[in-house]
Amino acid sequence: MYIEKVNSPQDIKELNINELNVLADEIRTGVLNRVSIHGGHVGPNLGFTEATVAMHYVFDAPRDKFVFDVSHQVYPHKMLTGRKDGFLKVDDMNAISGYSSPRENSEYDLFEVGHTSTSVALASGLQAARDLLGEKYNIVVVLGDGSLSGGEAFEGLNVAAEAGTNFIVLFNDNGMSIAENHGGMYKSLASLRESNGESSNNIFRALGFDYMYVEAGNDIEKLVEAFRKVKDIDHPIVVHLHTEKGHGYQPAVKDKEAWHWSVPFDLKTGKPKVTGSGESFTDLLGQYLVKKAELDDKLLVVQSAVPAMSGLSKERREALGKHYVDVGIAEEEAVALISGAAKAGAHPVWGTPATFMQRTYDQLCQDLAVNGNPAVINVLGASIYGMNDFTHICFFDIPMFSHIPNLVYLAPTTWEEFIAMEDWAIAQDKFSVALRVPCAVVHSDEDYPTDYSQLNKFQVTHRGSKVAVIAAGGFYQKGEAVLKLLADEGINATLINPRYLTGVDEQLLDELKRDHQLIATLEDGSLDGGFGERIARYYGPTDMKVLNFGVKKALYDRYDVNDLLRDNHLTETQIVADIKTVLA
Amino acid sequence: MYIEKVNSPQDIKELNINELNVLADEIRTGVLNRVSIHGGHVGPNLGFTEATVAMHYVFDAPRDKFVFDVSHQVYPHKMLTGRKDGFLKVDDMNAISGYSSPRENSEYDLFEVGHTSTSVALASGLQAARDLLGEKYNIVVVLGDGSLSGGEAFEGLNVAAEAGTNFIVLFNDNGMSIAENHGGMYKSLASLRESNGESSNNIFRALGFDYMYVEAGNDIEKLVEAFRKVKDIDHPIVVHLHTEKGHGYQPAVKDKEAWHWSVPFDLKTGKPKVTGSGESFTDLLGQYLVKKAELDDKLLVVQSAVPAMSGLSKERREALGKHYVDVGIAEEEAVALISGAAKAGAHPVWGTPATFMQRTYDQLCQDLAVNGNPAVINVLGASIYGMNDFTHICFFDIPMFSHIPNLVYLAPTTWEEFIAMEDWAIAQDKFSVALRVPCAVVHSDEDYPTDYSQLNKFQVTHRGSKVAVIAAGGFYQKGEAVLKLLADEGINATLINPRYLTGVDEQLLDELKRDHQLIATLEDGSLDGGFGERIARYYGPTDMKVLNFGVKKALYDRYDVNDLLRDNHLTETQIVADIKTVLA
Repeated sequence: MYIEKVNSPQDIKELNINELNVLADEIRTGVLNRVSIHGGHVGPNLGFTEATVAMHYVFDAPRDKFVFDVSHQVYPHKMLTGRKDGFLKVDDMNAISGYSSPRENSEYDLFEVGHTSTSVALASGLQAARDLLGEKYNIVVVLGDGSLSGGEAFEGLNVAAEAGTNFIVLFNDNGMSIAENHGGMYKSLASLRESNGESSNNIFRALGFDYMYVEAGNDIEKLVEAFRKVKDIDHPIVVHLHTEKGHGYQPAVKDKEAWHWSVPFDLKTGKPKVTGSGESFTDLLGQYLVKKAELDDKLLVVQSAVPAMSGLSKERREALGKHYVDVGIAEEEAVALISGAAKAGAHPVWGTPATFMQRTYDQLCQDLAVNGNPAVINVLGASIYGMNDFTHICFFDIPMFSHIPNLVYLAPTTWEEFIAMEDWAIAQDKFSVALRVPCAVVHSDEDYPTDYSQLNKFQVTHRGSKVAVIAAGGFYQKGEAVLKLLADEGINATLINPRYLTGVDEQLLDELKRDHQLIATLEDGSLDGGFGERIARYYGPTDMKVLNFGVKKALYDRYDVNDLLRDNHLTETQIVADIKTVLA
Repeated sequence: MYIEKVNSPQDIKELNINELNVLADEIRTGVLNRVSIHGGHVGPNLGFTEATVAMHYVFDAPRDKFVFDVSHQVYPHKMLTGRKDGFLKVDDMNAISGYSSPRENSEYDLFEVGHTSTSVALASGLQAARDLLGEKYNIVVVLGDGSLSGGEAFEGLNVAAEAGTNFIVLFNDNGMSIAENHGGMYKSLASLRESNGESSNNIFRALGFDYMYVEAGNDIEKLVEAFRKVKDIDHPIVVHLHTEKGHGYQPAVKDKEAWHWSVPFDLKTGKPKVTGSGESFTDLLGQYLVKKAELDDKLLVVQSAVPAMSGLSKERREALGKHYVDVGIAEEEAVALISGAAKAGAHPVWGTPATFMQRTYDQLCQDLAVNGNPAVINVLGASIYGMNDFTHICFFDIPMFSHIPNLVYLAPTTWEEFIAMEDWAIAQDKFSVALRVPCAVVHSDEDYPTDYSQLNKFQVTHRGSKVAVIAAGGFYQKGEAVLKLLADEGINATLINPRYLTGVDEQLLDELKRDHQLIATLEDGSLDGGFGERIARYYGPTDMKVLNFGVKKALYDRYDVNDLLRDNHLTETQIVADIKTVLA
């Protein structure tokens, strides 16, 4: 065994090709060990194992600098840079994240990364500094073909090319994004693969890069040979590697989409260790969209990759047929597209996790809201119960969405309320509407309104006095629980479902002044720039006291959600205690 | 004269080529008439006059749909679609905007536009809807070569190509952005121009488009011939037009950069009618950066096009030499680049108007702040006194920047305070720092601190009681004026310069409770998600009253700033009146 002796890339420099092949197999075994026990990205890491070994063998990190796009293929790199125990030993797995992390190892990991299409742009900064300071080292950037659809990748390539100095992009082409690739350029990339790099439609050359093609992207000997050719090169070059996603684990090769990422699974059978029980919002959403397309001929379901996150399995995508378009990893394009499609008479609906929507701030303002085109956006995972990796935090959406003029942001509290709002949003033609889709499935038999065009009208669901609890979206049930505890304390509080996150119900807020002393706002998201803050501003010049409950502004990573609730006084008991303290 | 009889594109269909040429000259005269009297974009409109005439002559708007990128070249189009008086008659000029505007004419203008690189993406939505609904019309998209550096343009091209149906991109290549072009692909574009479209490095073909080159982009006959070839085409094609920016007005041809946009000027001499008097912040900033580069070998001044907006004339850019890099119109890239450059030891500084920074929300969060890399961002024009076109509003920056974890957003109140903060920000290595650069130049001989690393410490500049005015950045002088008026009313108020927009000085805010009843916050920007709202949240559960002054959330366009101040109770007299009402 070689891997157990590897504490840094130095430890592999003396191996020969046969030994490197054995090492690669051991790394692959370590990857599978971790993901089967801990869950994580499977196909990307298996597909890039040999290339990573060759990178560390030929180049000299940490002097030479590596930047990984998305960084979900970074497991072999971590194993070679002092973190193998996070893959070999069960007890060490939690300490190691699934992404590039300077906090873990600042020598070999240059940036915290998690979003797509950023590697070249970040590395162009390394290049600019290196050249300005007159230093000398290789900059090696890993970019997958799925990431190339993202605009930031193009911007980076364009700038790195013009700088004209050493800059080596390893283009990891496995013919896949998370699902299939989308975009006109993928035909050109296929031609390059089929012509062994000779075809004339070479987007990299067109952008100003030199270019080399390596067909055997999982062959260490060929990779080492190629990397030796470009080491210390004096200009920008793309080394186009044809790799196989999932290489070395048959289930992952056979179903590339399913094995992009996995929950813990049985290595022998490939079956998940725990099957999800009960309903998932994602799955209900996918069903809903397919049914909607049968009833609404103008429905256009738009994805920016990650179709599974909207419950859109391959079967459902096929069922949607012409009603489905995937723009690839290109969220900015998705927002502009739905604006244009709404303008031209279709009923577009786009959904993706809130964290990826961060790319679209300007498009939301400029392409969509300023025009008020009636498109619908499903903001997914926006909750403390959503993804909690450092670079995938989803609960800063309200600060981002709710202050954009002319955008309506709705917060449904149950599945049925979501359907009522979504149906209205799709059918109406006056507003640009986003919906904050709850993470948990809660059902209700309440008779929800079918029309939400009277903006910013909150709904009083229980009329009491003294204290009013305004509980938005996924925290509405928490508001109900708080009301019960207050009742136990002899306080018959008012409960309000605000429904709208983009404005206040001034008439209602004024009415509440008559017989309430305190307003408590609950939101499953950032306090800073949040929904509650606006309520506090409204009551600022009055005698009304306002208590805002939500999450403090900070950097979060792989938190325990119960700890997070407690730290932010978000348990029902804490909320009631704080309310009583203010009332006293 | 033909133009005076043109009320819609129908009115030019019967003209012959000679008559179209006369019409084009008349349009050019109209453009020059407007810009010399009213100001506006010069070079872009003069360069695209013939192409616009040919577009309306060959295609059949409004059934055929035109989308203009940025839309600063839209003046000839407006003249041909019922709005010629906005160019020919002085009294009608204010009613017509400088950009595409459905509110003005919804038949021929499909979107409100103002930012770059959006046209193809928006049009890809028209394409998706048209194809879904089984409709038939030409989609004609104007995209300039300067805009091609923007990621959203690539995302749009990629998606439109895959859709594979009628989609005609008129690529307006005049070899210029606002200033010179930047990026590796521009070499390929130059090769295409030099080889009459034959060179093999064809980025459009690589993205999946068909392609045609037209060298004589200002020759109506050639343009009409080319457009006739592609009319009703059944697949996506790029028609690459070589045009001359400023064509037809010698000063604009001679100095393309200066004549991109102009204040009112004398047509005969080309000289501005009013010369700016006094200092401009922009000019001081440019001087500062050049001087800084002489002292700091690691300084890297980054621009995303628009160098003039940071006071970086051609001479100053040459003086900066290796300390200057322009990434082209690619703001996302700029943020990632400065993060990478800071990581690798340079001292990067990037500046651009706040409205364009909207593109970088995710990069600010993910590429920069999550890493805490010590880069410096100058947020320009963030004020109600900044640009006020519909799509160039700059005062929604505080909601955007101030809630991002791990980003420090400073608000200097004078030129000297800006320098003190900027010097610190550039030299330090712990924080990602943005500075809200004031629009007006106010000088002070105050001895400002040199260290701002103790975050969120506000500064009390006058200690009083009863009322505290917290006046941020460019509204600090307004705070001083309010204090005087309050003193006249017998109230010795406290004045506070908060300096930090990203957090609150909890210790100070608690102290103020002892002898103050009311806190008034003043900010030159959006109330919604603003600085004052966070102060209101802090005092929510207490007896302290809070009055937030700022601008209401709404869509704004070419407002009179004095009307805006009054509508928002932002005059000093109104502020004092509101304070007294609450105190009563």
